[in-house]
Amino acid sequence: MANRAATPHALPLALTLGEPAGIGPDITIAAWLRRRELNLPAFYLLGDEALIARRARAIGADIRTAAVSPGEAVSAFADALPVVTTGERATAEPGKPDASSAPAALASIRQAVTDVREGRAGAVVTNPIAKSVLYRAGFRHPGHTEFLAELAAKDGRVPQPVMMLWSPRLAVVPVTIHVSIRDALAELTSALIVSTVRIVAAELKSRFGIAQPRIAVSGLNPHAGEDGSLGHEEQTIIAPALKILRSEGIETRGPLPADTMFHEAARSTYDCAICMYHDQALIPIKTVAFDDAVNVTLGLPFIRTSPDHGTAFDIAGTGKANPASLIAALSLASRMAASQS
Amino acid sequence: MANRAATPHALPLALTLGEPAGIGPDITIAAWLRRRELNLPAFYLLGDEALIARRARAIGADIRTAAVSPGEAVSAFADALPVVTTGERATAEPGKPDASSAPAALASIRQAVTDVREGRAGAVVTNPIAKSVLYRAGFRHPGHTEFLAELAAKDGRVPQPVMMLWSPRLAVVPVTIHVSIRDALAELTSALIVSTVRIVAAELKSRFGIAQPRIAVSGLNPHAGEDGSLGHEEQTIIAPALKILRSEGIETRGPLPADTMFHEAARSTYDCAICMYHDQALIPIKTVAFDDAVNVTLGLPFIRTSPDHGTAFDIAGTGKANPASLIAALSLASRMAASQS
Repeated sequence: MANRAATPHALPLALTLGEPAGIGPDITIAAWLRRRELNLPAFYLLGDEALIARRARAIGADIRTAAVSPGEAVSAFADALPVVTTGERATAEPGKPDASSAPAALASIRQAVTDVREGRAGAVVTNPIAKSVLYRAGFRHPGHTEFLAELAAKDGRVPQPVMMLWSPRLAVVPVTIHVSIRDALAELTSALIVSTVRIVAAELKSRFGIAQPRIAVSGLNPHAGEDGSLGHEEQTIIAPALKILRSEGIETRGPLPADTMFHEAARSTYDCAICMYHDQALIPIKTVAFDDAVNVTLGLPFIRTSPDHGTAFDIAGTGKANPASLIAALSLASRMAASQS
Repeated sequence: MANRAATPHALPLALTLGEPAGIGPDITIAAWLRRRELNLPAFYLLGDEALIARRARAIGADIRTAAVSPGEAVSAFADALPVVTTGERATAEPGKPDASSAPAALASIRQAVTDVREGRAGAVVTNPIAKSVLYRAGFRHPGHTEFLAELAAKDGRVPQPVMMLWSPRLAVVPVTIHVSIRDALAELTSALIVSTVRIVAAELKSRFGIAQPRIAVSGLNPHAGEDGSLGHEEQTIIAPALKILRSEGIETRGPLPADTMFHEAARSTYDCAICMYHDQALIPIKTVAFDDAVNVTLGLPFIRTSPDHGTAFDIAGTGKANPASLIAALSLASRMAASQS
């Protein structure tokens, strides 16, 4: 067992079950099978040992599981996939979420947050959930990340979560996220840009080990508005936000034309690109890092990473699911935990 | 001399001067110097022999020029850079447009269009212009492409030009182009999508030699609107347009989530991506093909390509300008002319 006090980054990672009928169990098993080859950090799955055993049989994976407590996960990891039971059985067949899906998925997320906040886990890594399944069971949060932010509330204050997509080749943060383009125009404010970039800058320092983060900020409009002839938001919203950020010592460049920010030479000039809307951020990272981009939630009082894909019900239980993004999420979470400690 | 009637694709390409104080002369010289190494198609510059001689000295290039008529360009090309004079002297120093800039640039464009329409050139390739310089001289068109469309008008009808960005790895067409995001939302209609895709499909057949073009169409909103929860334009504007196009036998897929359209495996499933706004199209192509993307204008009664960059006044006359995009534009124009003939 690791000595937590001396080497806190050797705490295991708490991996949530995600939607039990999705590919979460498949990629968890596939990642564990490659633990030695890839020198993966120790993790434990918060779930149901029987589900994992069934799924392993379905995909023809020869694995052992071990029912453990979080404190036993690191030593168990080499020989068995450590499972910490949440007490919620998950009975759903691959591709067919059932009444057990939502309680099992939610219990796993809640327990992961408790574990990381009480010092039993180094970070939370989440498998994909199916929001539509949770909504049918009464879930009232806009999404996975907002639920985690609620769980992280302190004295009634809910932190602002910031979504970063990270890969070794590019890191991006969309300022507005899961809203229509029309709503993104309405939501975009200097205050939102400032609060977002503050969080990004702080965590690039504290959790990515970058002493002086270099932040590139896109314009909203083509050619960053071309001096106002193609839109005014660069002058009225973005530039004033950057002025505030620079006055705080945060190194920002922009507003930059988005189309010339993401080729290889340009990417080497910054640590993170701040984008004004979803596709402006997601198009470039999914173009250059489709399989191994990681979703990182900044702004929470703990580290949270996640694979950058959904439940893929159509291939759950078939053995076809690619664990690359989960593996990248586990590796990055471990790196961030080490950097933070 | 090539026999034009028998091998029309062996007609020379008419290359415009562009802004004389920009990098057009530099990259023209640099491209000609690599003619043998890259087996470039014969082209002639519509401009001013003395300007080219001065610029060659400035960048330390050892070249010969030859004052020719278009009909002499192919045979002259091996030994000298063929220049067809427009009669407009260009006196501007590199980086410093002067009163001669606009007349020289405009005469070159006009003559190129006349040459290609009268069968003396196989295609028009345009060097970059500086709109602000032309505006000061009374130019009244929104841009280079619209000016070419005006020159191509027949019986008072101006054709709809369609901008394609082409590279060997990806071809994209933005439906709305040089307008703010807010204006793009207002301009986007089913009719505009239909007329744009019709032109793209027809020219992929006639000028790119693709018998049954596969066209991928993006959504406007994140996740292509996620069944209406992130915006309605997919349902009210894009899907109805695709229905019309399919009824005409045009193979279209969409509306697709834009963020997952541009990774390598996705790109191999279509010949051209139709995007709803500038950055949705330009971000991916400039990410994967920054140096050698070509701007192609479809919808005109002649072939027109252009390098995908501006006048770069800051490096004009220094020898630092990269001719890769012009070289790609020349090669593509030649390929299109051969495919068409």
